[in-house]
Amino acid sequence: MEQLFSRLANYQDEMVEIRRHLHQNPELSFEEVETPAFIASYHEALGLEVRTGVGGRGVVAKLKGGKPGKTVALRADFDALPIQEENASPYKSKVPGVMHACGHDGHTASLLVLAKVLTELKEEVEGTIVFIHQHAEELAPGGAIAMIEDGCLDGVDVIYGTHLWATMPTGTIGFRTGPVMAAADSFTIKVQGKGGHGAQPHKTKDSIVIGAQLVSNLQQIVSRRVNPLDAAVVSVGAFEAKNAFNVIADTAKLTGTVRTFKEEVRVAIEQEIDRIAKGTCLASDASYEYVFKRGYPAVVNHKDDTEFVVDVARKVPGVIELEEIEPQMGGEDYSYYLERVPGTFFFTGALDDSWEEVFPHHHPKFKINEDALLIAASLLGAATLSYLKQDSPTKVLS
Amino acid sequence: MEQLFSRLANYQDEMVEIRRHLHQNPELSFEEVETPAFIASYHEALGLEVRTGVGGRGVVAKLKGGKPGKTVALRADFDALPIQEENASPYKSKVPGVMHACGHDGHTASLLVLAKVLTELKEEVEGTIVFIHQHAEELAPGGAIAMIEDGCLDGVDVIYGTHLWATMPTGTIGFRTGPVMAAADSFTIKVQGKGGHGAQPHKTKDSIVIGAQLVSNLQQIVSRRVNPLDAAVVSVGAFEAKNAFNVIADTAKLTGTVRTFKEEVRVAIEQEIDRIAKGTCLASDASYEYVFKRGYPAVVNHKDDTEFVVDVARKVPGVIELEEIEPQMGGEDYSYYLERVPGTFFFTGALDDSWEEVFPHHHPKFKINEDALLIAASLLGAATLSYLKQDSPTKVLS
Amino acid sequence: MEQLFSRLANYQDEMVEIRRHLHQNPELSFEEVETPAFIASYHEALGLEVRTGVGGRGVVAKLKGGKPGKTVALRADFDALPIQEENASPYKSKVPGVMHACGHDGHTASLLVLAKVLTELKEEVEGTIVFIHQHAEELAPGGAIAMIEDGCLDGVDVIYGTHLWATMPTGTIGFRTGPVMAAADSFTIKVQGKGGHGAQPHKTKDSIVIGAQLVSNLQQIVSRRVNPLDAAVVSVGAFEAKNAFNVIADTAKLTGTVRTFKEEVRVAIEQEIDRIAKGTCLASDASYEYVFKRGYPAVVNHKDDTEFVVDVARKVPGVIELEEIEPQMGGEDYSYYLERVPGTFFFTGALDDSWEEVFPHHHPKFKINEDALLIAASLLGAATLSYLKQDSPTKVLS
Amino acid sequence: MEQLFSRLANYQDEMVEIRRHLHQNPELSFEEVETPAFIASYHEALGLEVRTGVGGRGVVAKLKGGKPGKTVALRADFDALPIQEENASPYKSKVPGVMHACGHDGHTASLLVLAKVLTELKEEVEGTIVFIHQHAEELAPGGAIAMIEDGCLDGVDVIYGTHLWATMPTGTIGFRTGPVMAAADSFTIKVQGKGGHGAQPHKTKDSIVIGAQLVSNLQQIVSRRVNPLDAAVVSVGAFEAKNAFNVIADTAKLTGTVRTFKEEVRVAIEQEIDRIAKGTCLASDASYEYVFKRGYPAVVNHKDDTEFVVDVARKVPGVIELEEIEPQMGGEDYSYYLERVPGTFFFTGALDDSWEEVFPHHHPKFKINEDALLIAASLLGAATLSYLKQDSPTKVLS
Repeated sequence: MEQLFSRLANYQDEMVEIRRHLHQNPELSFEEVETPAFIASYHEALGLEVRTGVGGRGVVAKLKGGKPGKTVALRADFDALPIQEENASPYKSKVPGVMHACGHDGHTASLLVLAKVLTELKEEVEGTIVFIHQHAEELAPGGAIAMIEDGCLDGVDVIYGTHLWATMPTGTIGFRTGPVMAAADSFTIKVQGKGGHGAQPHKTKDSIVIGAQLVSNLQQIVSRRVNPLDAAVVSVGAFEAKNAFNVIADTAKLTGTVRTFKEEVRVAIEQEIDRIAKGTCLASDASYEYVFKRGYPAVVNHKDDTEFVVDVARKVPGVIELEEIEPQMGGEDYSYYLERVPGTFFFTGALDDSWEEVFPHHHPKFKINEDALLIAASLLGAATLSYLKQDSPTKVLS
Repeated sequence: MEQLFSRLANYQDEMVEIRRHLHQNPELSFEEVETPAFIASYHEALGLEVRTGVGGRGVVAKLKGGKPGKTVALRADFDALPIQEENASPYKSKVPGVMHACGHDGHTASLLVLAKVLTELKEEVEGTIVFIHQHAEELAPGGAIAMIEDGCLDGVDVIYGTHLWATMPTGTIGFRTGPVMAAADSFTIKVQGKGGHGAQPHKTKDSIVIGAQLVSNLQQIVSRRVNPLDAAVVSVGAFEAKNAFNVIADTAKLTGTVRTFKEEVRVAIEQEIDRIAKGTCLASDASYEYVFKRGYPAVVNHKDDTEFVVDVARKVPGVIELEEIEPQMGGEDYSYYLERVPGTFFFTGALDDSWEEVFPHHHPKFKINEDALLIAASLLGAATLSYLKQDSPTKVLS
Repeated sequence: MEQLFSRLANYQDEMVEIRRHLHQNPELSFEEVETPAFIASYHEALGLEVRTGVGGRGVVAKLKGGKPGKTVALRADFDALPIQEENASPYKSKVPGVMHACGHDGHTASLLVLAKVLTELKEEVEGTIVFIHQHAEELAPGGAIAMIEDGCLDGVDVIYGTHLWATMPTGTIGFRTGPVMAAADSFTIKVQGKGGHGAQPHKTKDSIVIGAQLVSNLQQIVSRRVNPLDAAVVSVGAFEAKNAFNVIADTAKLTGTVRTFKEEVRVAIEQEIDRIAKGTCLASDASYEYVFKRGYPAVVNHKDDTEFVVDVARKVPGVIELEEIEPQMGGEDYSYYLERVPGTFFFTGALDDSWEEVFPHHHPKFKINEDALLIAASLLGAATLSYLKQDSPTKVLS
Repeated sequence: MEQLFSRLANYQDEMVEIRRHLHQNPELSFEEVETPAFIASYHEALGLEVRTGVGGRGVVAKLKGGKPGKTVALRADFDALPIQEENASPYKSKVPGVMHACGHDGHTASLLVLAKVLTELKEEVEGTIVFIHQHAEELAPGGAIAMIEDGCLDGVDVIYGTHLWATMPTGTIGFRTGPVMAAADSFTIKVQGKGGHGAQPHKTKDSIVIGAQLVSNLQQIVSRRVNPLDAAVVSVGAFEAKNAFNVIADTAKLTGTVRTFKEEVRVAIEQEIDRIAKGTCLASDASYEYVFKRGYPAVVNHKDDTEFVVDVARKVPGVIELEEIEPQMGGEDYSYYLERVPGTFFFTGALDDSWEEVFPHHHPKFKINEDALLIAASLLGAATLSYLKQDSPTKVLS
């Protein structure tokens, strides 16, 4: 393990260099070309077995250890966002309107250099390590599900992944058993009333009035119909009914999002929105179209694997604090991996105390403390090697 | 006509005396006993043909004139209200909790003395005069409909009636062609949700939340679903859902009133309330019971008869001003008479300028200027005699 | 008078021809160039005194009669609408996206030919006739107010005007004393909340939820705060809050219209909207911007002048029926003339019974029965000549 | 420890007997007379030091062990509820309308017999044991706070308490670190509008319409203003505005409850209700009175003590399962003890599998499996003795 940590530390500059290269050359979800090529060639140079185009644009590299054993998968995503960078760093994004504003560049850099070190330590590895470089995390339906269908989890016993977290101090590892990121769904309701002249409401079915009631009534889902102990959000982000001032609206379109942690709550909310839309429209003799579009399910960490990684983390250089975090209402398609194999998803603090202002993920001024990359790589590597050394780790604590 | 006016003026004291007697001895709707007996014996003393118990408790007296002709009906109501009088006059109500707070005592006194004078002028009368003394105007279903079914309008060509009006100056006659008093209906909606503990809303269907939405949604009937040119009111007067503070309500009961002037609007509102209740309850998976109870229809004055009375009024002593009034949103079962025979219903001002404060009808301090009684009797009498002298009055102005 | 009617009838073809010429060459409000030039040259050819550019683009022609007397103004508007005509007539609009879809072409043609005939009868005319050809009736602030400020009503004793009405049978003249067309105002409310991520409502002030409540609460103005006997409309025609589905809206913009017939109701509604916006935003700790933009005031016909024109109409050839109409909720800047001088505004039926379908004003398939032009001209002319022959017409019927 | 368990088992019949005696003689909160007298005499018979009238009606008994050591407090509440029992058992409540429908009879019986056994084992006890018999748990402000102010916790190092739980199987112990029962507050909002006749809404400020909006708007507190991860409930249990159907309500009174687990959320909700009431009333120019009455704070179990009791429970006879339970939204004034000294509050399952139907606490048919009393006594006793044997138990697991 000391070998792992010291070698990673020696390659810290390379890690940062790779991250900056990726940062300057971001690519949007489902449009990644150069990034997967870069990743594939790096792994090929290490002599690993590489598959490209996995599930579309993903890259999977496989390291067979010197001894027989189980199989660990490590996942890093590599897509960027449609955001115009507002930072002034020398390695600022070169692509107008596209930016690595969520840290995926760091994820990828960490995993690549970790692969290099693990390759160097190959003979000691008791089993197999699968490096999953996933495209399109930011855009539903995401790359994970397609990569899984294309076999990236075949033979995998456990999966680890992390997210660099710009609002948590560097040195802190955030963990949580159970639901850690929410299911993130979207919906649209199109109210079909009957338009007319603004001076003659009695000849119309006023879609704006109906839509307004609908928004008010939807508040009841969280306030009255979901168990208060179950976190849930129903937000309407857009209300569109644009007409001349003296016209009564024919239609109104509502678009929103739903966040939940339990499948039963998710299903119930999908039904309650429909019930409320139906009743509200009926009260005005109007009709509606309702589409509920499922996004990623909740990321649900496995208990044993999470506790295992927490135990490992106590000995990782640079890890100062272990923090049991609150669940995040945001979504992640890492959920699909954990639906199929055991594992965990943890957060690697990347906030620099010297910053005057901290910008959240997806912000044009988002940035990370690059020291966090080494910590992420060290913990992922240590967890992998520790797991492969165990006899049956996931049963120890059950 | 001069005979009519001077004789009435001579009997003004008697008129006031009768009114005060009735004021001291008020009787509630459908419980009138002494009042109709008093009325009947007065008419009998005049030698008129009298029927009692008409439609329950009504009294009808008939005066056959010395010459053949048409038949005019004059109507006065005689019931009182469940109100404790707060005036300190010497002729204050002797019955606790019961009061003539709407002027029906005055209506009756005017009509009785008018009958006396018309009997004195009997030989000149060219036709028949029917004095309809109606019970139970204040309480639906009212006395009018039963008296009509019991024949009080048989043979009647035209009907006149008035209401003493405490908020209009004495000397003013208020008139209006078409709808002059609203249809006054009532409704109850009982929302049946599902009760439970206040800390567990998700196991309930919160009737108070549903009832609250219902009240909000009912506002749309007038604001969106009725022609802006048609006056209408939908008011919820009671919202009852009384439970411990930490309980979620099983049921909520709304009670309200609807006022309209057109039958089509009345019917539409009855349906819209149901539509809104249905949709609003459906949105919460609750059920409801809805009862719409029709009260009196709108009082709709006939055009020719109204204009005729206005013309007559110009020559009546004491009438200073003729005012075309706005329709009143209150109800009156005089409407049933006008649905069957031509006629009009006018308002006789009874406000005294010397009062420091004016109290509305149905107020515990309600009072009237007793001078108005003579004016009411004079106009009713003059209209009757004028009508009977015409050949075919209702066709003159059509 | 017979001279007037017969001469107008003789020129009916010219009237239709002029109307079709204007129909083919429509010009938008405040962009009229050819139309006023055409009008001015027509009047100049008649030898009348003509002023152009009155209040911007208006034209005023003055005919001084052979005898001294009072002054009558006649008004016709001449602007068109931003509508693409969908009729297939030979004289269809030649201007893409612009159409005489409200009959102003007919108003102008009628008035021009009437001027021609009155000029022919000049020697008999006892006073002065002012022909007011107004631009920009369709677009607030309208042309009327500017023309008045530029003197078009100077010396005028009475004004008459008409609107061809495509939904009323040809031969019918619609009239009404008092308010006949509504005040038509507009408003915008911009709710300023605080945006954020759709998954974190507690860090935001949700403008869509606030805007929705606002729409619901605005229903109370008509249902609870305006006298049920006063017609009023408050309609929200646009609700704009367009964001990504997973974002909570920073702002929401509502745009709407208010229609009233009484100044006091108009003022009260302007205030109530503000009160409701203030309270609703306060409840969510949000702020707002409210702009209430007055459009045209209500058109309020003078009683004597309306009854005078109705009397005159009984003898006008082609007038089959006189109908007391309901007030119209639409607006007209004719209101400004009637605020300054006595007069009336009546409706000239222009529906053809043979049509299979009737299209309302402002519809791409709007059309009129051209026979109505002669009726309009005849009644305007007859009223003018009758008025000028009276001694003191407005007192006759009071 | 074996001595403890076997002796308790031997006295099981007495425990049941005491419980049934109390069940037959229930006394309401703050009206307890016989119950505390019974408790005091039992402890006195054991020779313990007894204080009565503690904080009003509480009883505190103190057992000084044979050896020096720390002090453990054990708490049982003893008041009953204003409910008419509907069970048909031979030991049914003898007091009409009063019932032990929450298991406090069982709490008391367990603690009394446990005191008896611990007294028998006195010489082995290394420290002091304080038996806190609390009155008035069911009715705010409760007995706990007054008993604490009267010294019942003086010198106490740790406190344990349990609730028999009729909906959890006998043999299960429910535990939870951190918030385990909610803060339970109540509020009333009295809307002061302006009453009037149902037909004249424009002269009123309709309190029912305002109250209805208020109920709708309050839904936003949970749906929009509280962190979705923080459980909270705002329920309106009563909406009172009772008038005649044709009257517009002068006032409307809302009464409700708020449940929270965090003080910051509790404070925020208190303020948000006020903000919403203020804005909603302002929108209608009405006023309001708002009273927020704090009930018990949340019961927050201490981590170390909870884990300690769970460890002890593994060895207690009859304990079959340890279940980490969800927090309960109901309130308990045990919270006050835990605000002052370390400790925990656990749930002792008392459901009998043979029951055909399970009735919740506070139900007229509520019952418990009396076998649970022995389990409760055993765990409380075992935790007490274990604690007193430790050196510094609360530091072991920190």
